[in-house]
Amino acid sequence: MPDALPDPSAISGTTRLYVVLGDPVAQVRAPGLLNDLFARTARDAVLVPVHVGPEGLGEVMRGLRRIHNLDGILVTVPHKIEVCRYADLLGPAAEVAGSANALRRNPDGTWLADNFDGAGFVHGLRANGHDPAGATVALAGAGGAGRAVAAALLTAGVAQLRLYDPDSARQEDVLARLDARWPGRVRSGVEGDFDGEGDHEGGRVDIAVNATPLGMRPGDPLPFDPARLPRTCVVADIIMKPAETALLKAARDSGRPVVHGRHMLDSQVLLYQQFFALHAPERNGRWEP
Amino acid sequence: MPDALPDPSAISGTTRLYVVLGDPVAQVRAPGLLNDLFARTARDAVLVPVHVGPEGLGEVMRGLRRIHNLDGILVTVPHKIEVCRYADLLGPAAEVAGSANALRRNPDGTWLADNFDGAGFVHGLRANGHDPAGATVALAGAGGAGRAVAAALLTAGVAQLRLYDPDSARQEDVLARLDARWPGRVRSGVEGDFDGEGDHEGGRVDIAVNATPLGMRPGDPLPFDPARLPRTCVVADIIMKPAETALLKAARDSGRPVVHGRHMLDSQVLLYQQFFALHAPERNGRWEP
Repeated sequence: MPDALPDPSAISGTTRLYVVLGDPVAQVRAPGLLNDLFARTARDAVLVPVHVGPEGLGEVMRGLRRIHNLDGILVTVPHKIEVCRYADLLGPAAEVAGSANALRRNPDGTWLADNFDGAGFVHGLRANGHDPAGATVALAGAGGAGRAVAAALLTAGVAQLRLYDPDSARQEDVLARLDARWPGRVRSGVEGDFDGEGDHEGGRVDIAVNATPLGMRPGDPLPFDPARLPRTCVVADIIMKPAETALLKAARDSGRPVVHGRHMLDSQVLLYQQFFALHAPERNGRWEP
Repeated sequence: MPDALPDPSAISGTTRLYVVLGDPVAQVRAPGLLNDLFARTARDAVLVPVHVGPEGLGEVMRGLRRIHNLDGILVTVPHKIEVCRYADLLGPAAEVAGSANALRRNPDGTWLADNFDGAGFVHGLRANGHDPAGATVALAGAGGAGRAVAAALLTAGVAQLRLYDPDSARQEDVLARLDARWPGRVRSGVEGDFDGEGDHEGGRVDIAVNATPLGMRPGDPLPFDPARLPRTCVVADIIMKPAETALLKAARDSGRPVVHGRHMLDSQVLLYQQFFALHAPERNGRWEP
């Protein structure tokens, strides 16, 4: 819950802008989180949702870059990969993932894109008591968020990452990028990775992650069946709306530990605060997480 | 004062967007007025300022048109003329003025531009007890706002309008447009129009209006000297920040009646409400002004 409610009547001609781009955009939680941060740190700033489809992303990004009082852009499905074209510079996580979820205007006017999905996801796992170091992880989804989660898991010391995506060309492309940086630790996932009690080639799965959009809409099929995972396997989802997907409900009902999507974003607020230099005015020193 | 404060924490992924475009934009009052209206009518909508210069207007407009949850655009200095290029249709006041200060997305996806500066200005004059019907008016400024004010004054029955602009080509162009529609009632203004006790060619001036940007910045010269106007001449300014320009202060100090810029915008809120179909949900019938 917010410590203090922002004062909306405070929006004026001097207010700085932040946006979150998505399609759909109704499900995003960034406005609540960031506007609360702005209020708590007494910043004259507001974040608003911007609903744009793939056909309009280029024109919207070119327009946004021309807005002098726009300081930051958050990005969600399905634009995390394409948006990198409209940045002048890529930060390290965006570079390796080939996708970005945040862009900021630098003091020299250039735009820097980086990706905090992965770091936020790993932070959320740890905050729930599940350190991924040394674990075997099965990850469904090699889109913009999935590849960021993959890179952060490998950075965090995952022993083996099995990546599955229904688009096999995309899956192979992402695997090649990850393998170049973390040789021998990634392999293509198969349906069997999400299956069973550990007697197949790769050994048992410790953590299974959904990074596909399956579960956002009522009636979506499950991305994988949690009942076929080892009993102690942690099941994590990156979907934030609904708060508990059918996948997580099925996992929880069958006694497996779960990590909800909100943790990935909640953990990112601190990272955004650093990226956008949203230091609390009362703190004069360097921002410390 | 607002009847109810908007709840800023209410900005979410479902919020509809309105923007006000300007350069500068820090002085605009539209966010306060419209966000208060949204709160009073319980709409999930927010208006934010967008600072864009002339060099970026085209890209910003093309981008804004691609945003699915953007319903309206307000426009201020210096974009009111150029913005008409990016509309699909012009309303009657925008057509005659050649400038627009509001655009809305129609149900069929087209964008309609219209101009409420003139109607708002005339409404504000009347609300202050000064009916312009039959009056002789001297108007300084033939830019986007000035030509809208000119057209509305002629519609309201002004007997003679004298238009002055330092850009003589612009002045002649606007005069020709107005004369085509209201033959014989407009003529080019000269410095002498703002001078004196009525013994020059055009007769005494009843209302003198500043529609130039002079007075927005400290140290700006006066657009004209109110001390040289007839003692009973009404002096009106369309500048909203500062609330009282040097022109109005000089006019007031010398005992002349004044009309402040805020009245033009205050009067427009009702017109915007109609244009954007922002009916209060509790009223089921047609919106009535």
